[in-house]
Amino acid sequence: MLNPVFWLVPVASLIALFFAWFFFKQMMKNSEGNDTMKEIARHVREGANAYLRSQYRVVALVFVVLVILLGVLAFMKVQNPFVPIAFLTGGFFSGLCGYLGMKTATFASGRTAEGASKSLNQGLKIAFRSGAVMGLVVVGFGLLDIALWFWFLNEIVFTPENMVNGLEWAGLTFVHEGLTEKEKMIEITVTMLTFGMGASTQALFARVGGGIFTKAADVGADLVGKVEAGIPEDDPRNPATIADNVGDNVGDVAGMGADLYESYCGSILATAALGAALPALTGTEQMQVVMAPMVVAAVGILLSIGGIFLVRTKESATQKNLLTSLLLGTGGSSFMILVALAVLAYLDWITWGIFGSVVVGLLAGVIIGQGTEYFTSDEYAPTKGIARQGLQGPATTIIEGIAVGMFSTWVPVVTIVLGIVGSFAFAGGFENFAMGVYGIGFAAVGMLSTLGITLATDAFGPIADNAGGNAEMSELPPEVRERTDALDMLGNTTAATGKGFAIGSAALTAMALLAAYIEEVRLWLGKLAKASAEGIQQVGDYIFYLKDNPEPVVEKGQKAVEISAAGIRDFSSAYDLSLFNPMVLAGLFIGAMMAFVFSSMTMKAVGRAAGKMVDEVRRQFKEIPGIMERKSKPDYARCVEISTKGAQREMILPSLLAIVVPVVVGIIFGVPGVVGLLAGGLTAGFTLAVMLNNAGGAWDNAKKYIEKGNFGGKNSEAHHAGVVGDTVGDPFKDTSGPSLNILIKLMTMVSVVMAGLTVAYSIF
Amino acid sequence: MLNPVFWLVPVASLIALFFAWFFFKQMMKNSEGNDTMKEIARHVREGANAYLRSQYRVVALVFVVLVILLGVLAFMKVQNPFVPIAFLTGGFFSGLCGYLGMKTATFASGRTAEGASKSLNQGLKIAFRSGAVMGLVVVGFGLLDIALWFWFLNEIVFTPENMVNGLEWAGLTFVHEGLTEKEKMIEITVTMLTFGMGASTQALFARVGGGIFTKAADVGADLVGKVEAGIPEDDPRNPATIADNVGDNVGDVAGMGADLYESYCGSILATAALGAALPALTGTEQMQVVMAPMVVAAVGILLSIGGIFLVRTKESATQKNLLTSLLLGTGGSSFMILVALAVLAYLDWITWGIFGSVVVGLLAGVIIGQGTEYFTSDEYAPTKGIARQGLQGPATTIIEGIAVGMFSTWVPVVTIVLGIVGSFAFAGGFENFAMGVYGIGFAAVGMLSTLGITLATDAFGPIADNAGGNAEMSELPPEVRERTDALDMLGNTTAATGKGFAIGSAALTAMALLAAYIEEVRLWLGKLAKASAEGIQQVGDYIFYLKDNPEPVVEKGQKAVEISAAGIRDFSSAYDLSLFNPMVLAGLFIGAMMAFVFSSMTMKAVGRAAGKMVDEVRRQFKEIPGIMERKSKPDYARCVEISTKGAQREMILPSLLAIVVPVVVGIIFGVPGVVGLLAGGLTAGFTLAVMLNNAGGAWDNAKKYIEKGNFGGKNSEAHHAGVVGDTVGDPFKDTSGPSLNILIKLMTMVSVVMAGLTVAYSIF
Repeated sequence: MLNPVFWLVPVASLIALFFAWFFFKQMMKNSEGNDTMKEIARHVREGANAYLRSQYRVVALVFVVLVILLGVLAFMKVQNPFVPIAFLTGGFFSGLCGYLGMKTATFASGRTAEGASKSLNQGLKIAFRSGAVMGLVVVGFGLLDIALWFWFLNEIVFTPENMVNGLEWAGLTFVHEGLTEKEKMIEITVTMLTFGMGASTQALFARVGGGIFTKAADVGADLVGKVEAGIPEDDPRNPATIADNVGDNVGDVAGMGADLYESYCGSILATAALGAALPALTGTEQMQVVMAPMVVAAVGILLSIGGIFLVRTKESATQKNLLTSLLLGTGGSSFMILVALAVLAYLDWITWGIFGSVVVGLLAGVIIGQGTEYFTSDEYAPTKGIARQGLQGPATTIIEGIAVGMFSTWVPVVTIVLGIVGSFAFAGGFENFAMGVYGIGFAAVGMLSTLGITLATDAFGPIADNAGGNAEMSELPPEVRERTDALDMLGNTTAATGKGFAIGSAALTAMALLAAYIEEVRLWLGKLAKASAEGIQQVGDYIFYLKDNPEPVVEKGQKAVEISAAGIRDFSSAYDLSLFNPMVLAGLFIGAMMAFVFSSMTMKAVGRAAGKMVDEVRRQFKEIPGIMERKSKPDYARCVEISTKGAQREMILPSLLAIVVPVVVGIIFGVPGVVGLLAGGLTAGFTLAVMLNNAGGAWDNAKKYIEKGNFGGKNSEAHHAGVVGDTVGDPFKDTSGPSLNILIKLMTMVSVVMAGLTVAYSIF
Repeated sequence: MLNPVFWLVPVASLIALFFAWFFFKQMMKNSEGNDTMKEIARHVREGANAYLRSQYRVVALVFVVLVILLGVLAFMKVQNPFVPIAFLTGGFFSGLCGYLGMKTATFASGRTAEGASKSLNQGLKIAFRSGAVMGLVVVGFGLLDIALWFWFLNEIVFTPENMVNGLEWAGLTFVHEGLTEKEKMIEITVTMLTFGMGASTQALFARVGGGIFTKAADVGADLVGKVEAGIPEDDPRNPATIADNVGDNVGDVAGMGADLYESYCGSILATAALGAALPALTGTEQMQVVMAPMVVAAVGILLSIGGIFLVRTKESATQKNLLTSLLLGTGGSSFMILVALAVLAYLDWITWGIFGSVVVGLLAGVIIGQGTEYFTSDEYAPTKGIARQGLQGPATTIIEGIAVGMFSTWVPVVTIVLGIVGSFAFAGGFENFAMGVYGIGFAAVGMLSTLGITLATDAFGPIADNAGGNAEMSELPPEVRERTDALDMLGNTTAATGKGFAIGSAALTAMALLAAYIEEVRLWLGKLAKASAEGIQQVGDYIFYLKDNPEPVVEKGQKAVEISAAGIRDFSSAYDLSLFNPMVLAGLFIGAMMAFVFSSMTMKAVGRAAGKMVDEVRRQFKEIPGIMERKSKPDYARCVEISTKGAQREMILPSLLAIVVPVVVGIIFGVPGVVGLLAGGLTAGFTLAVMLNNAGGAWDNAKKYIEKGNFGGKNSEAHHAGVVGDTVGDPFKDTSGPSLNILIKLMTMVSVVMAGLTVAYSIF
């Protein structure tokens, strides 16, 4: 029987979805402006829809192949038969969140421009509430998906009767017979966890494809339009300008939404799985620790909605007022969540240690955001220093930017290290190791508990950016463009902190998933041992045996390990996941390499796609007469198509790499190799992603700082150097960097889902 | 009693030193050319000497401080009292090798120019034999240092009598009483290992300081001379041109020599320490496994000398003949070494498994070199692709170069992974784990066994480069400059493979050191437990007890571990060095970050030092009248001084960071944190270093490829973009990338030396 508190989870998710709908309807009531504005918005909307349709077609194909493969593995008894379905729902919901967020954004940007033509505050409200739609859709569907599966598995599949007799159907084993309560809960949570693989796969395609799309369009529009033809940004004469605006929606809105949907679900489910594996708990206690992360998330949703309503400002608001009111929203939510969790701790729903872990996670999110802000905002020394190097030319600008990016890694790394160690120590420490690891999971849940509102501030950016584009293309009066620029700048600030938040939460989530992986491995060892005649499962030189079996005889070099060894700590040491196992080291090296090779591939993909866009824009300027004189319209749709095709083609290889490598490493180097791969990918990938994000962000703002009139201003030597830096930074910060978040998580998810295969068939 | 085969070791080292002296004398017999040539050579020589003197002054200060600190630790009984002295000898010999190599190079370059004015072959012979001086000095002094210490500790300190009664002096414990033969050998080898810290410290200052010096001079000479004043490279009117030539000597010769001296000694000693720790060996067998790496190195020295004599070519040699004859030398040495080792294996001095590990190491070195060649030579697609991007401007050139650098990491990473796993499997595998790890050490020893000749091909590069500079400044006829250019190009090829070799050997050496670290930790646990009243040593929640003691009572969360647990595998798992210990993960994150932050610091240092040089060159052009008309001479010495001061100031902070961080991590996060730090630094640092080296090398050659007339040739748009790429690549490939080699090794060395402190005082 489910604990009645469980119902808080679906209720909170439905409330989130209701408010998402409500905010969407509210936004739609606003006027979309004059006919030109409507037309431009329609172009962008159609382009974005066309792109997403074609992306989802490719993704659907990949999903079909993967579902078949997972099905085959299920028949080989090395895969849970629910996984193909879970995989599909995860992918579906993740894609749906991206789609809905993007749809809202494309409806909102014209309305934001129209709103801004009335007042700054009106523009802010429309853009922010529209961003909130995506925030709430992500958390709403995330938690709904979790609640549905949890109810279904608990009440329909793992019934007391099935646990005694087992459940077989069509040659597939859904429930093993003679399952204990504890085994049941572990089975349920790790099964659910695997729907994260669907979400990650979807998210990776969205991030990589969207990232390639947006930068190909951006570079194409800039190189030919701004540099060669000398027309301003977002000029309607530029054929790639619509594609550029579409790109903001598909990359920054849909990609970000799918990415964080996955972090959100992954952190909650990994923590639940770690809770299920906690030793020495009664049935009620176990149900409580499994549900605790869901309940915390549900509380977070409700209070995030509260925070959204806190974001309001005076009609005559200044830039600073705007930022303050956004901070009031996120800060207010965080504070209310802390109070609510203190109440939960007081009621013994979570321990005070876990409360500490959540606080650590929330704080870590804030610090990483602030650090990102410091290293990328033109108000501080690092970005100003890059701008100053522009005086000496592009080469020194590039070197300085890379150096700033590399140096900036220390803030998030130290924060994450303190976050890991702190949340571990608060929750249990070495004295209660499993509880400590459970606490690390809660740090991720804590960081993401405010996602409903932080994602709103994030999605706000591209909406404001597009509103600016719309205002420019519709030739609205300059004061409107000034207002949308102010909103855009606010969006840049929130986007920088949002990116830090995304990578920080990805790191903590991956940590929790890594720990959950070992539980999945243990589960499979047990399943396969039970299914074997001898009651053992041999992996390389390890012979794993069930608790009540006699210890098997081992030969030289072999080792017998009891599967149900007390906790994660004993088990992982007995299984030699230490850094002195050459397989672990091999994995570490490959993991670090993956981060670099993957970044290289996405970077080159942008270059190739952008090259095609450059050719197309040049062709249109040449072949369509009268574009420059505004006598005829450029063929916007063709540019969208070029970017779409480019993104479609280029996203396949890096994405497949992320799926294939963990499987291959697992088969060759076994579980120790996989653990090494994941740890290497996590640490090197995290650091590299921060470097790429921050270097890119700093170059962007250094250029803007020069454009404000510093070091010679527009068209000076420094400005030319700044433009080079900005162009180099584009794929850094909008394609490779953000995609690394998902690479890290997807490799972990694939490993979790493929644990059965690794355990059964690894070579070493 | 030492095994008589031991004497092969000092004899081989003396033969190497004899041939170094012989080649030096031979080289000195050649004419140094006309008076201008002599004067220029003198300027460069004096500049280089002045730089080294001032560098050694700074290093001496750092050494005094560190020796005092190590002495204090020895009095606190957490440091071996030999360490301060061993530290000094390591630093001294490493510095001496750098000094002698550089001295030879500065004498050789003028003579090479003069030789090239007779024939290409004459130039090659002088340059290559001079390079061989450094190769032989490094291996000769390396092995001599090892032989002296091994003899001294075996015959003078750890005498049978001292082993019974102990040896105390001035409040310091040199030998504990009641030492077994096995404990003695472990004590001896790990004590010797610590002289590697002196060598690494010296090497780091040489690489970082030299790297900053050379690039500051290079950038200064290029930016003002070539770009602003429009005079050719190496023009005597450029005040920074002498400093530029000095830079090649101090960075590429002295820095490289000190670096590889350290890898060479580190790999031999770490492997010896792993041999000493092998379980279940008799005294004779143990002596044999400890001496085996030294003997293999000695054999390698002798056959490298043979290989050097193989390098000869016809008088009318073409470029291709030259490369073939160099390959004949290195390939011939490798082949002879394999034959000799097969004989050793046949005589049971090493197992056939170890023979396999050595083969793996040798092969890995070749593959990494070839991979580097592929990704950086203008004969292959990657570099040509970068040059082609020049058509679209500097931004795409930079992106493509970074992408190529990142992608190129896969070859060395996969090679190192196969090298680790292969040498492990050949030597013992999981069935004989300790032997397998010993085999990984032997892969490093194998890769470095040809160092005598590979370093010769490496040092050859800067000598040829300087010869070209000399020819240009002395205004020798164009055909001479053509010949020196041919030698220079050959040097670029060998330098690229040499850099791959340096980083590859650093990775394998660091691997072996990592394993030796755990033996050092065990040694200190034993020492401190013996010294305590209860016979235990508590570290965090672990209570380590001596073998014959009763198992101590533990509280909740604590764990009792027997210090002498069978092998490295059991010990490292029992001590929880698994990736699930949050302390290990914290270390991993910090290690990855260190690689990025350190690179950032060295990159910025170059920028600052180069800025000063630019100012100085501009000042001289303005204030010294008649420079451009060749009426008066620029003030070369002042530029050398500027670069020297810049390097001196800037090398301190990153170097100290590399020394301080492992100590701080050890004290806060304990042994698991240190192991994580080293593994993270190794994997992320290795990958990043390869990326920086290869991106830099590829940009350099892409620029040269354009200069050959491709994509528009000199002064085209593509060429300007290529110059930007080359300038960005300079600090990548000559400062940050190569310095990372030593960062990785130095952090490991510091950890080994500070193991006692970590074990006694860590917080977690």
